[in-house]
Amino acid sequence: MHKLAESIRSVPGFPKPGIVFRDITTLLNDPAAFNEALSIFHNRYKNTPLDRVVAVESRGFIFGAALANLLQVGFVPIRKPGKLPAQTLHEEYELEYGRDTIEIHADAVKRGDRILIHDDLLATGGTSVAACRLIERMGGSVVGLAFLIELSFLHGRQRLGNYDVFSIIQYESE
Amino acid sequence: MHKLAESIRSVPGFPKPGIVFRDITTLLNDPAAFNEALSIFHNRYKNTPLDRVVAVESRGFIFGAALANLLQVGFVPIRKPGKLPAQTLHEEYELEYGRDTIEIHADAVKRGDRILIHDDLLATGGTSVAACRLIERMGGSVVGLAFLIELSFLHGRQRLGNYDVFSIIQYESE
Repeated sequence: MHKLAESIRSVPGFPKPGIVFRDITTLLNDPAAFNEALSIFHNRYKNTPLDRVVAVESRGFIFGAALANLLQVGFVPIRKPGKLPAQTLHEEYELEYGRDTIEIHADAVKRGDRILIHDDLLATGGTSVAACRLIERMGGSVVGLAFLIELSFLHGRQRLGNYDVFSIIQYESE
Repeated sequence: MHKLAESIRSVPGFPKPGIVFRDITTLLNDPAAFNEALSIFHNRYKNTPLDRVVAVESRGFIFGAALANLLQVGFVPIRKPGKLPAQTLHEEYELEYGRDTIEIHADAVKRGDRILIHDDLLATGGTSVAACRLIERMGGSVVGLAFLIELSFLHGRQRLGNYDVFSIIQYESE
């Protein structure tokens, strides 16, 4: 376990009994820890040819935008339905109960673009698979997916198949 | 008008007729424009003693977190109800129709902390006034409020009274 895990607050029973919520706000509120996590991402991708960082609403915006700026590439938000004002593409994905949808601006990624996808958390991978589909429908190439936290026991990495998946902190159980 | 306004996309009729939505995603997807806006914020506050940047969900996270990292201070998110897992304080504020609520972790700001509040957009100022109240209830001091865009014709700056309010781009009408 990376020592940055010490900066994460574990909150049992949130959002419901049996779940241990991994709260990154304590890490973000510690400038040295925040900077170290951001530097790990930056060092991993700084020699990788990239055109944009795409990040998922809303916690994904926190590292995603800062990383895009460090890498000097564009930043593209993926959002919940109805938030993006121009023409969008959307993808549905399955939740434990029901379905959810994410959207991206249809002109945000160009054919041939090399894309890094970021979210704070890799759980079952449903959102990430949908994000990859959005990028590929626009002709972009998913160069990698970068997460601060991976809940390994939910096997999201397996659902992401042959993509390059990176995480800084892994939890093997709740 | 700052030349960065050229990087903002105006979308008439979103989210409803009569409104012109100022879409920052085109600025974010232009690395030079994003970096210039972030540098303007950084230069304005780099010599101001600060302890944390507090930013409002979710577009506020984009510049807020990157700015906190550049300033080497903590980053604190203000979120919609039910998103933050630990003990929170909340504030209600009025919307055009109805009321809304924002929350902050009760331990995120310490007595005496010097706080910069960031959001992407200053409209009527309701959210910002509520954010100031949250900070002050915890004993923090609001050193300033920084916005990418100010809709001057909605007079949010007046509602923020004697606070130090800064914006990069101002619109004088819809």
